Amino acid sequence: MSPKITVELLRQLRQAMRNSKYITGPIQAYIVPSGDAHQSEYIASCDCRREFICGFSGSAGTAIVTEQHAAMWTDGRYFLQASQQMDNNWTLMKMGLKETPTQEDWLISVLPENSKVGVDPWIIAADQWKNMSKALTSAGHSLVAVQENLIDAIWLDRPPRPSTKLITLGLKYTGMTWQEKVTALRAKMSERKISWFVVTNLDEIAWLFNLRGSDIEYNPVFFAYAIVGMGTIRLFIDVKRMADPAVREHLQLDAPSTVEMTVQVAPYESVYTELQAICAALGPRDKVWISDKASCALTEVIPKAHRAPIPYTPLCLAKAVKNATEIQGMKMAHIKDAVALCELFAWLEKEIPKGTVTEISAADKAEEFRSQQKDFVGLSFPTISSVGPNGAIIHYRPLPETNRTLSLNEVYLIDSGAQYTDGTTDVTRTMHFGTPSAFEKECFTYVLKGHIAVSAAIFPNGTKGHLLDSFARSALWESGLDYLHGTGHGVGCFLNVHEGPCGISYKTFADEPLEAGMIVSDEPGYYEDGSFGIRIENVVLVVQAKPKYNYRNRGSLTFEPITLVPIQVKMINTDLLTEKERDWVNEYHRQCRVTVGAELERQGRKEALEWLIRETQPIA
Amino acid sequence: MSPKITVELLRQLRQAMRNSKYITGPIQAYIVPSGDAHQSEYIASCDCRREFICGFSGSAGTAIVTEQHAAMWTDGRYFLQASQQMDNNWTLMKMGLKETPTQEDWLISVLPENSKVGVDPWIIAADQWKNMSKALTSAGHSLVAVQENLIDAIWLDRPPRPSTKLITLGLKYTGMTWQEKVTALRAKMSERKISWFVVTNLDEIAWLFNLRGSDIEYNPVFFAYAIVGMGTIRLFIDVKRMADPAVREHLQLDAPSTVEMTVQVAPYESVYTELQAICAALGPRDKVWISDKASCALTEVIPKAHRAPIPYTPLCLAKAVKNATEIQGMKMAHIKDAVALCELFAWLEKEIPKGTVTEISAADKAEEFRSQQKDFVGLSFPTISSVGPNGAIIHYRPLPETNRTLSLNEVYLIDSGAQYTDGTTDVTRTMHFGTPSAFEKECFTYVLKGHIAVSAAIFPNGTKGHLLDSFARSALWESGLDYLHGTGHGVGCFLNVHEGPCGISYKTFADEPLEAGMIVSDEPGYYEDGSFGIRIENVVLVVQAKPKYNYRNRGSLTFEPITLVPIQVKMINTDLLTEKERDWVNEYHRQCRVTVGAELERQGRKEALEWLIRETQPIA
Repeated sequence: MSPKITVELLRQLRQAMRNSKYITGPIQAYIVPSGDAHQSEYIASCDCRREFICGFSGSAGTAIVTEQHAAMWTDGRYFLQASQQMDNNWTLMKMGLKETPTQEDWLISVLPENSKVGVDPWIIAADQWKNMSKALTSAGHSLVAVQENLIDAIWLDRPPRPSTKLITLGLKYTGMTWQEKVTALRAKMSERKISWFVVTNLDEIAWLFNLRGSDIEYNPVFFAYAIVGMGTIRLFIDVKRMADPAVREHLQLDAPSTVEMTVQVAPYESVYTELQAICAALGPRDKVWISDKASCALTEVIPKAHRAPIPYTPLCLAKAVKNATEIQGMKMAHIKDAVALCELFAWLEKEIPKGTVTEISAADKAEEFRSQQKDFVGLSFPTISSVGPNGAIIHYRPLPETNRTLSLNEVYLIDSGAQYTDGTTDVTRTMHFGTPSAFEKECFTYVLKGHIAVSAAIFPNGTKGHLLDSFARSALWESGLDYLHGTGHGVGCFLNVHEGPCGISYKTFADEPLEAGMIVSDEPGYYEDGSFGIRIENVVLVVQAKPKYNYRNRGSLTFEPITLVPIQVKMINTDLLTEKERDWVNEYHRQCRVTVGAELERQGRKEALEWLIRETQPIA
Repeated sequence: MSPKITVELLRQLRQAMRNSKYITGPIQAYIVPSGDAHQSEYIASCDCRREFICGFSGSAGTAIVTEQHAAMWTDGRYFLQASQQMDNNWTLMKMGLKETPTQEDWLISVLPENSKVGVDPWIIAADQWKNMSKALTSAGHSLVAVQENLIDAIWLDRPPRPSTKLITLGLKYTGMTWQEKVTALRAKMSERKISWFVVTNLDEIAWLFNLRGSDIEYNPVFFAYAIVGMGTIRLFIDVKRMADPAVREHLQLDAPSTVEMTVQVAPYESVYTELQAICAALGPRDKVWISDKASCALTEVIPKAHRAPIPYTPLCLAKAVKNATEIQGMKMAHIKDAVALCELFAWLEKEIPKGTVTEISAADKAEEFRSQQKDFVGLSFPTISSVGPNGAIIHYRPLPETNRTLSLNEVYLIDSGAQYTDGTTDVTRTMHFGTPSAFEKECFTYVLKGHIAVSAAIFPNGTKGHLLDSFARSALWESGLDYLHGTGHGVGCFLNVHEGPCGISYKTFADEPLEAGMIVSDEPGYYEDGSFGIRIENVVLVVQAKPKYNYRNRGSLTFEPITLVPIQVKMINTDLLTEKERDWVNEYHRQCRVTVGAELERQGRKEALEWLIRETQPIA
């Protein structure tokens, strides 16, 4: 990996920072955040501006260029990668280390008095703007919104914004028409006396309109904004996409049922002026909902007195609770996914001894098997396929220069998932194809105990996920071990594999109470640096539980595994399991055998079926 | 309990709200919060202003009086009591119910336009002021500081502020001279570039100067403020208290070792003008620490640019981590406390069958036995002595009209503690003196399992207490049960029985990471309304644990019980215990027998010793 040469780019950017074509007065620093205008987790290549200017391609990082300096902040996952991808014009700011200054402190330390710091207000979230602006102002500087993006100004071969074909989803997949979703949303708006809701998250727009796209890799979304009022629905999107007859029909563009259900389509970029027009006509008591993570540019359009920022939008909450059709679809998707993984593991068992399977080829094979399944659309995130020491790198992704060969001597960890039209999957299994060491088995068993402790937990309605996180760690803690990531995240239904507002983590922000119908991952792990990584991940559905008593009629919840892929018994030190844990494993494997076995049989996948039956024998 | 008649008082207060003697212009509402100027949990009778105006004597509640209305907000613990103590001039605002408006919303709904709402800025915390002021301002009203307290103005027989004799604590009890504490505090101040620290919490002042008082019941503190600079120490206190030669000697008032260690004593009330003088002389980079819970009045003296509000002061954190001498003292105090409780339980066993023991007489007997122990000072909180259904009232305190007789048919719960010169205790035991029902035993056993799960937990250094809370609930949750309070609180050393900044609760605020030397309570419970209450509470010390591995050299922690009072085996359904839990009970009882047994023997308390030996027989 050789660093990107940025001398000329930095010269051009600094020129732009003084160029009156773009800015009213010179700015002394320019901030280049990671994200896009929708605060997406994965971004389109046209939005990879930070990578363009500094070379660093990781998912998180902020670059800041001043007249004299260029610095880039990223976290521990990416220290090595960033140092390899950036040339020496750049200073790597290692976040999380005590000696590393914050962006604010660093700016204040290097800027001349009364400096102006510029940023594209479309890329920075309103709350981030607020914090940065406050810090700079208190030091005598100011944060200014630069309307023209200065990276775009110097990025000559910047790819166009994608405008892929839209997929329309019928009731069979969604369980609810978009009109019903709009009606439910309006009911929530009127309950809270909200006149308008500005939808900025791409997955919320996709969910609301029962549409999907492929503008961004892994996330089946499309670039758009929406503004919903009590009597109007506006969709801001590349209007060319509305030429598709299926889309026209789906949105009833040519024959709307009522005025209130008429979708008014306008160009993507016109959201700004349209929102301005809406805000100009607001009554004194009108309130406008917008996510507090929305861009500063759009947030500022709404006069403060009318703005009702919310941490979680009603769509985010509604989307998180899956309906019966979505649950059914998620279950089907996971059965198909399990078929593909049974095929993969049966194939690996045969091929690994030949010494020809690598992390990359195994990942490719997994994708190949998945792509044979009905309604396969693509992967839901880049496959983590890792052998031995690579398994200890939590966000590892195999590259030609790191690619290891699978063998009978090392632990193999594969964390992968796919998008199917009926659901999204995400599963991690850790396997040994030879004889695992006692320590590997011991650690695997603690992780398994943690996985079961969460999966089998019974807890009251209204419990927040962070209260379950320690269950996943208890067995590891008892032996002095731990893992440095959360235990679970929300999973979308043929949508983003990571979605809010619920999860299971020691971090307590971003955590709405769990309720029946929510779907999250359960993925404790253990990572022995330089040696191996272990993670056991199922996607689980929150369901009603019926314990013996029902304190204050609150009701209880538990989880039902949706992922149905055997957990390698060879890796378990059964002496460390309690009777209850052993029963859980046997019951889980029985379900895998029955449900996935039937599908393997139906698909005539004999070898994989044999593998499944062998791997799901009860443990004594 | 008959309500307080408040017609005349309200008339007088409303008159004061218009009286130019107290205020520059009429105010339309006056807020009477619960607290004192130090945000103390327990308050002196001269500070019971809210009780004076409305009659309600509970520990939490805020009264607001407007020209037309009078309303009082309190929480679920006190709905019944408040409704009995207040006459019909008052509206009870039941906090936590959906239909109950917040104080802000209610004020906005009842006030005429452009109203002024008054409050004593010494009683309201700076952060509360900020929130209230913001809400009122946004609705066109304003919050104004009324310097003269309007309740005091009409409270003719208001008791004087207590000024009790001070107790000086030597190294034998504190392990650290006050000079060493000042030096350590200054080191933290200079590390954070802080010039001054305004100490407002009474327990922090008591801890810093190694002094105790009895101005407030249960909490051995005294009314004072302190301001510590790098070269000066100012103590604001009733100067008459400095006449005591022991105090003069202790504080070295007549022969200070150095200028930096000279305590300058000034009248309690002069803190305001002295802080003004200090602030007038601040350099441009000087920062002043003050708790964000400090009074609005004192906080506002410090110009915003110089103010460094902190959620936990360095004294709060230092005080929470007990040194070896304090730990030794706490252990001694708990052994003496256990002696008293063994006496109590042996006595109860004998007396209950006679039908003459009541909740109140049992509580009195407990106090009598405690008072026989060396260095006994007083109780650390009002004893909760409750029989049968009264046990289900979590904050119950026996009163003549609720007083029940202990019998062989009902569960008895006693939550009590004392102040000894060497330490503070807090212990809850739940006993049955006849034959408990299967359901009572089942619930008791779940609570015990939760207690053990926390007490025996091993967890990494730096873990916050809220991550352990679910361990205490897991067994209850599994059967659909729960309890609606936190699991534990910090405990002071001959100081407040409830202290920050650590604890074990599902609430995640007020929660600093646990570290070795901290002392907290572990007190899960179960409450069956109208029937019985169960709680098992030990005070536990955070200690280093030595598990098999040591991930990333973080180190591990666990708890060591300091409370050594038998847990009634008769209440345990041993079939529900795991082997590990049974071993924990047996080992705990062995420790009780050895340690407390030796002390009972030394004190020649034969009957109690026999009871102890009987109650600590191993379970099979």
